Amino acid sequence: MVESDPVFERHRGGKMAIRSTVPLSSREDLSLAYTPGVAEVCRAIAESPGLAREYTWIGHTVAVVTDGSAVLGLGNIGPRAAMPVMEGKAVLFKEFGGVDAVPICLDTQDTDDIVAIVTALAPSFGGINLEDIAAPRCFEIERRLDEALAIPVFHDDQHGTAIVVLAALRNAATLLGRDLAALRVVVSGAGAAGSAVTRMLVVAGVRDVVVCDSRGVLGAERTDLIGEKAALAALTNPRRVAGGIADGLRGADVLIGVSGGTIDESAVAGMNPGGAIFALANPTPEVDPAVAARHAAVIGTGRSDLPNQINNVLAFPGVFRGALDAGAPRITAAMKLAAANAIASVVADAVSPDAVVPSPLDPRVAPAVAAAVAQAANENAETARNG
Amino acid sequence: MVESDPVFERHRGGKMAIRSTVPLSSREDLSLAYTPGVAEVCRAIAESPGLAREYTWIGHTVAVVTDGSAVLGLGNIGPRAAMPVMEGKAVLFKEFGGVDAVPICLDTQDTDDIVAIVTALAPSFGGINLEDIAAPRCFEIERRLDEALAIPVFHDDQHGTAIVVLAALRNAATLLGRDLAALRVVVSGAGAAGSAVTRMLVVAGVRDVVVCDSRGVLGAERTDLIGEKAALAALTNPRRVAGGIADGLRGADVLIGVSGGTIDESAVAGMNPGGAIFALANPTPEVDPAVAARHAAVIGTGRSDLPNQINNVLAFPGVFRGALDAGAPRITAAMKLAAANAIASVVADAVSPDAVVPSPLDPRVAPAVAAAVAQAANENAETARNG
Repeated sequence: MVESDPVFERHRGGKMAIRSTVPLSSREDLSLAYTPGVAEVCRAIAESPGLAREYTWIGHTVAVVTDGSAVLGLGNIGPRAAMPVMEGKAVLFKEFGGVDAVPICLDTQDTDDIVAIVTALAPSFGGINLEDIAAPRCFEIERRLDEALAIPVFHDDQHGTAIVVLAALRNAATLLGRDLAALRVVVSGAGAAGSAVTRMLVVAGVRDVVVCDSRGVLGAERTDLIGEKAALAALTNPRRVAGGIADGLRGADVLIGVSGGTIDESAVAGMNPGGAIFALANPTPEVDPAVAARHAAVIGTGRSDLPNQINNVLAFPGVFRGALDAGAPRITAAMKLAAANAIASVVADAVSPDAVVPSPLDPRVAPAVAAAVAQAANENAETARNG
Repeated sequence: MVESDPVFERHRGGKMAIRSTVPLSSREDLSLAYTPGVAEVCRAIAESPGLAREYTWIGHTVAVVTDGSAVLGLGNIGPRAAMPVMEGKAVLFKEFGGVDAVPICLDTQDTDDIVAIVTALAPSFGGINLEDIAAPRCFEIERRLDEALAIPVFHDDQHGTAIVVLAALRNAATLLGRDLAALRVVVSGAGAAGSAVTRMLVVAGVRDVVVCDSRGVLGAERTDLIGEKAALAALTNPRRVAGGIADGLRGADVLIGVSGGTIDESAVAGMNPGGAIFALANPTPEVDPAVAARHAAVIGTGRSDLPNQINNVLAFPGVFRGALDAGAPRITAAMKLAAANAIASVVADAVSPDAVVPSPLDPRVAPAVAAAVAQAANENAETARNG
């Protein structure tokens, strides 16, 4: 079966390679690119470390780092089995953002080890894209790396997802004739993506967000909440809803599924009619799109074989391209909001229920995102200089 | 000066990039290479980890790992300034061996940390090429990684240099009409390269090797020797020579410089006339080639702008290509000897004082080395199965 399967055929030998960008066909070429010439460049960087961005590939290179603990909807499959996803990410970085990405699959799932390893790896890259690392340790890893390193650190499962969800929700709200501030939104899933989506929606002005984990709605009556979930409970649920996902969904306009689980139709049926359902788990959406269609006007998934693919590929290539272009030391909330607005803008003039986000193949997206992110980064820098 | 220099122009933006080897131009392409298709490949590897060699790029990929502590002859210039050399190595890996190499410059020079980090990185690569790590910690790092990992680990400064020196010495001995066993050889330098060269020459049958470090000849009367240097002293110097480099060189047939220092002409003048001088320090040879020409018949350096470039590029691309092709779990002494013999064989029929080794651009070298290394690896495996 493996032999004849088109997916396996496509993956044979992996999906990427290294390419030299300098000629190596003469002795002079070797003298310039390698010894003895290379020593001059090394000496120059030793004296002025900032020249590394100009005279090595780190100016356009990011590491895609995983510990294999939360891969797609497959869970903790480990670093070796995570590699096909990381390679896929890397080739999308190249295809859409012109960013050279290197998959780094780590054989440890210890928070301190991962922080120490990525810190030590940092001189080799212009940015760090964290990928498919399980919650809650992904929060601590990202926070510590963001503090320790002077290059952008971005947990794509959190912020890439949040950026694209916000873009989709902006255009869906336009279609529904509603303000973001007036929507009732349920986020199903309080892990990496759920947390970042929730926080981004709040920053963008959504007032009524209810978050559910596998035990039900996050709220004041839940005595089992610690860390990020406790923080989310404090930040959300202004109507003090309690109970399960069905209680959360009663009267909601929007469901955002980032849980990897399954949500029963009986619960979805309690939503206000004519709303939006974004069921993003890969490869199996939390709500079957055919079921979702009976209860919502706008449906999105994470899958590339269905319309409204709310996939991070709309965000991460342009986000890193813009951050690298601007030489940004980190990726701020303003840069993420700028990315979401840029994605939404690309299809804002032609928005329809089947196109609240651009196609992941739309060549306008990454340049628009990169330009918006770089501008926000430069405004950050300007503010910092003047502040 | 930096702006107009051809070396800097050649290095602008770095020397390498990532290339996708799969199409990404349609939704179906994305479905196959990324979600949802990629999940099938992940599941298959999770069940059978060996499939990672077949369905990811690790089957043809190595990490070029440094801590920046002993870069070329420049010394401890750190990880950022080491990057141009590591990129150079990577593009040579690709050009000559078809091996995809990723530069990893680590921001630590602690032995335990480096071992832990590279062990954690191992699932991401098919082999580990250690590069420009200072002695003596390079010995411990390589030994511990070789024990810990089931993929080839190869400290190129040691074994790459040793392989190419042995190849050059074989052909030089032919020119001089001498047996390896009858030569008096002085190795100047008892660091990473000096140690590996010395051990390889002994394994290959050279009986009279004298090793010098910055304090003079290694021998029984030296009370300051520990670790690898003590081991080298015990392994060499059968005539019990004592004193400085000049004492070591008196009556020697061959000088192999792997020290990075400078050797006075007065010392070189004591050699037997008509011998060989290989002065390999980069970018500045230990003996100026014009000076060497007054005292030896065969002269080699590490530079690509001079004849007889005794450079590791003759070895490492083919060594890893062969090891990866054979699926070898490590690189054995037999594989290294096979590599040296293969390099020497390429020019054995046309050997001359200006060509004791092939040109680094000779396209016959890497395939010959790869085939010889793979055959030796398969014989190792055969012996292990039958042993």
